[in-house]
Amino acid sequence: MTLTVVGSIAFDSVETPAGSRDRLLGGAAVHFSIASSQFAPTRVVGPVGDDFGEEEYAVLRARGVIVDDIEHVPGGKTFFWAGRYHRDITHRDTLQTDLNVFEDFRPKLSDASRAAEVLFLANIQPGLQRQVREQCEAAHFVAMDSMNLWIDIAHAELLATIRMVDCLVLNDAELKQLTDEPNLIRAARKALDLGPRVVIAKQGEYGSAMITADGYFGLSAYPTTAIVEPTGAGDTFAGGLMGHLAAHEGEIDDDALRRAMAFGTACASFNVEGFGSERLYALERAEIDGRVAELEAMTRF
Amino acid sequence: MTLTVVGSIAFDSVETPAGSRDRLLGGAAVHFSIASSQFAPTRVVGPVGDDFGEEEYAVLRARGVIVDDIEHVPGGKTFFWAGRYHRDITHRDTLQTDLNVFEDFRPKLSDASRAAEVLFLANIQPGLQRQVREQCEAAHFVAMDSMNLWIDIAHAELLATIRMVDCLVLNDAELKQLTDEPNLIRAARKALDLGPRVVIAKQGEYGSAMITADGYFGLSAYPTTAIVEPTGAGDTFAGGLMGHLAAHEGEIDDDALRRAMAFGTACASFNVEGFGSERLYALERAEIDGRVAELEAMTRF
Repeated sequence: MTLTVVGSIAFDSVETPAGSRDRLLGGAAVHFSIASSQFAPTRVVGPVGDDFGEEEYAVLRARGVIVDDIEHVPGGKTFFWAGRYHRDITHRDTLQTDLNVFEDFRPKLSDASRAAEVLFLANIQPGLQRQVREQCEAAHFVAMDSMNLWIDIAHAELLATIRMVDCLVLNDAELKQLTDEPNLIRAARKALDLGPRVVIAKQGEYGSAMITADGYFGLSAYPTTAIVEPTGAGDTFAGGLMGHLAAHEGEIDDDALRRAMAFGTACASFNVEGFGSERLYALERAEIDGRVAELEAMTRF
Repeated sequence: MTLTVVGSIAFDSVETPAGSRDRLLGGAAVHFSIASSQFAPTRVVGPVGDDFGEEEYAVLRARGVIVDDIEHVPGGKTFFWAGRYHRDITHRDTLQTDLNVFEDFRPKLSDASRAAEVLFLANIQPGLQRQVREQCEAAHFVAMDSMNLWIDIAHAELLATIRMVDCLVLNDAELKQLTDEPNLIRAARKALDLGPRVVIAKQGEYGSAMITADGYFGLSAYPTTAIVEPTGAGDTFAGGLMGHLAAHEGEIDDDALRRAMAFGTACASFNVEGFGSERLYALERAEIDGRVAELEAMTRF
């Protein structure tokens, strides 16, 4: 099935205990599509500025990402984020966020992008997510991410968007904040009441969990210790998840979602082993399959 | 196999969002043995004061716990702990800790307790744990817990004790603190270098993980939402784990440890559903088996 993602395309500057890097190719849609294109052709919708050049397009094309819907804004600058990771790399401080071309972004989807059967709305302003959702009438599995900022300042708009998706993918803290419920399982059940039939909680180093009306699935993270820089791990997880679902033949049922989460987990484990998504640039599908098999063995009892 | 646990026997006073309770029967050895006795006869070693009466003994005996090695200190008062849980019940404040009879506790084991083949050293001063370890020469699987206090003020003694056990059971934060390593997997590997062949990380609402020289096992928590009061969940987990191992015939290998962790997880999920260990007082073995089977289904992909 065809897969479209809308979200940020960015340059990131990061400081970590392992070293610093400037102008890393980043942004949710980039991390997502570099992972998802391992499984299914992925169209990226998002804006870039004049500083986004042939070198960056080449990275995406090399992975088979379809870049036709990346919108070049003449005279604009690409979204920029800078952050510093602590010694405990699960903690970070944002040093700078420049929206740049994202400030006036209005998603314009090509016919091909609109025809996507699987759609991921990465973390952008929920009103924009809804515009994309409405344009993609053919989509029969739609998932979305969001963040604390929109829960705070665009709550009603966020709820309206959540109502229109099949699957909500948030981290633990966001789920608890969204539902004002400190227990994760209860928070996820409250989130189901908002509309989606699937809620997936991202739990960082602990893994992830899926909550549906009548089911629960808990999955460990892959225990990599070679952590270099974790930016985009959650988007990479979503990319592996949605890519695997787009490649899946048949109904997107509990089994399909579980397996897709395992592939997302494996992709995320590679993401954190390098700066940006670099560890995934030359990644072989067999390496992902290998980690999924390991993960299966690591969670069996 | 026979199982001995040494640890605190206490009265707890707790305030939770669900209500308050005074003088709950508690303490690590109590939570542990009420769970472990579901699987194997368990001897409890620990001191109590004059305030610990027939009613308390009766609770333990009703579960088949062997109370012969509970030492009554005439004129003494039983260990007392008071705490207040937050709305987010994973956070709590300690309001009061009175060591009472624990202050001068020197473990004196009967021949029967010393003959235990499986031994659990619950969280007490590491020097006392070592004295017990040394008395139990027949033990061929020994596990221990500890806490931040001993990592801080009795570090060398704690390391000497860790060297003498097969399995170290700590929570995430303690493992990271013990090894001064912010990454959990690396922390657990460093802990293996201290002597034990098995490290089990308790991760609260996220579950648990087992790290050995050549293996990793990650297990979700059972997703109960009926959380009333979580004191002793970790000790109950250890009780289910060690009880199941004591009942296991054959080698304590990776498979046996994984299954035992699942039983510990199920026991802990019941523990949090009532005040103290009350939810386990009349618990049927079949209820535990049911949750283990559910957990298996909830983690398969």
